[in-house]
Amino acid sequence: MGARSLVVLLFLMLILSFSSAYQGKKKQYKPCKQMVLYFHDVLYNGQNAANATSAIVGAPQWGNLTILADKFHFGNVVVFDDPITLDNNFHSKPVGRAQGMYIYDTKNTFTSWLGFTFVLNSTDFQGTLNFMGADPIMVKTRDITVVSGTGDFFMHRGIATIMTDAFEGDVYFRLRVDIKLYECW
Amino acid sequence: MGARSLVVLLFLMLILSFSSAYQGKKKQYKPCKQMVLYFHDVLYNGQNAANATSAIVGAPQWGNLTILADKFHFGNVVVFDDPITLDNNFHSKPVGRAQGMYIYDTKNTFTSWLGFTFVLNSTDFQGTLNFMGADPIMVKTRDITVVSGTGDFFMHRGIATIMTDAFEGDVYFRLRVDIKLYECW
Amino acid sequence: MGARSLVVLLFLMLILSFSSAYQGKKKQYKPCKQMVLYFHDVLYNGQNAANATSAIVGAPQWGNLTILADKFHFGNVVVFDDPITLDNNFHSKPVGRAQGMYIYDTKNTFTSWLGFTFVLNSTDFQGTLNFMGADPIMVKTRDITVVSGTGDFFMHRGIATIMTDAFEGDVYFRLRVDIKLYECW
Repeated sequence: MGARSLVVLLFLMLILSFSSAYQGKKKQYKPCKQMVLYFHDVLYNGQNAANATSAIVGAPQWGNLTILADKFHFGNVVVFDDPITLDNNFHSKPVGRAQGMYIYDTKNTFTSWLGFTFVLNSTDFQGTLNFMGADPIMVKTRDITVVSGTGDFFMHRGIATIMTDAFEGDVYFRLRVDIKLYECW
Repeated sequence: MGARSLVVLLFLMLILSFSSAYQGKKKQYKPCKQMVLYFHDVLYNGQNAANATSAIVGAPQWGNLTILADKFHFGNVVVFDDPITLDNNFHSKPVGRAQGMYIYDTKNTFTSWLGFTFVLNSTDFQGTLNFMGADPIMVKTRDITVVSGTGDFFMHRGIATIMTDAFEGDVYFRLRVDIKLYECW
Repeated sequence: MGARSLVVLLFLMLILSFSSAYQGKKKQYKPCKQMVLYFHDVLYNGQNAANATSAIVGAPQWGNLTILADKFHFGNVVVFDDPITLDNNFHSKPVGRAQGMYIYDTKNTFTSWLGFTFVLNSTDFQGTLNFMGADPIMVKTRDITVVSGTGDFFMHRGIATIMTDAFEGDVYFRLRVDIKLYECW
């Protein structure tokens, strides 16, 4: 092989390596980790103290702390500590807890704003994932963001596609969370 | 061109490509996306239910839910769903909604803490941006952070420089938000 | 040196450059910045208005705004503006303020959810850091996340290991925060 063909080969390898580095770093639209989890919210209504996993802690002037407010619950702030399960069965063994808050924040439809953490403690995962985003509840699937993590999810980021999997009046709902992490360390 | 000059050329190209890659990845202080938006907040005061876009939902012991509290509103929690416009006119056609909460959190000056989402739905942008940060209201321009996004803003991050563009007593304010995204996917 | 050994050498260099790029970008488990700070929280109890740095602004139906609620304070929302110091002395000159909120969110143990900002204004650091995460208070050290920053911490991310450094009833606590930033721009 002559010096010239060597240079050409070298040049091709360089181009190849750059383009693969580029794909691998910033334009990676394929998740580096993915999982589906469910969590279950039982709202305190003044009579279910033993079973409730969440409570209204803020309300607008026209509301109170045992019934979600009029006007699509606008202004209600709810704090929660909800069990996370691998399937849609409320009685399955939890693999962690979803902890944080949601806020109803629209007057003319059901919309909430979410800030919470998945604290995972199972054989598969040890660590936390932090979620933030707007949740247009009436839309079938909606994307919120995974902004950070700890433990197995150190420095991870991504998207969570959520779906209301069940809904029973103002007392119970279950969310399906399809977590796709695009930045993994 | 001899083999020697070819190698030199190649070497120069290598250096060039590395430095540009470096700029493009981590030390990119030039935004990859930039936009200026306004949002408008009309606080519920007990009498403006039809027009209000936000409501006090938390207050310290010395406060209530229709008037911002004494001591620079320390402790007030406000939930909002504010229209976003391209210019400073409240009556312009909204391009989205700013949804989330702000908290007044200082006793001796006006300071707030922000956690909210821009839900954009225009011909230019479809997607959400999530904001978080401290807002020293009395400073002319202040930086908060864009921690994540969805849709057109998938995995984006950056800075938002905010400015109080108008202020009418405790009922209305308008914020100018200069969004500069430095990580774009 | 023959053409063959040149190719081998070249190949080795390629592998080396890839692995170092890989370590430098994504698998960097050594902090690029690190600091230890303390912050001090004095909770308003109805009688300490002058000294209090935080106040209960949300409570469940069984609570109120001057005493943390039964059931491990489940549902209490606290807004704070706490001094940050370089050592564990409450009377040391502050280098900034910790501003935001914490929420007690478990019924059967002490757990909180944190969303707050360090506003740093010292000779060493000018800028803000934003924190988010679940805080299992009874655990000796626990990790929350640094999701973003401004100023000297523009686009930074990382982990904060927190420790309860002192605790006096429901009125005072001091947290030690070991901040390790793994993404620095």
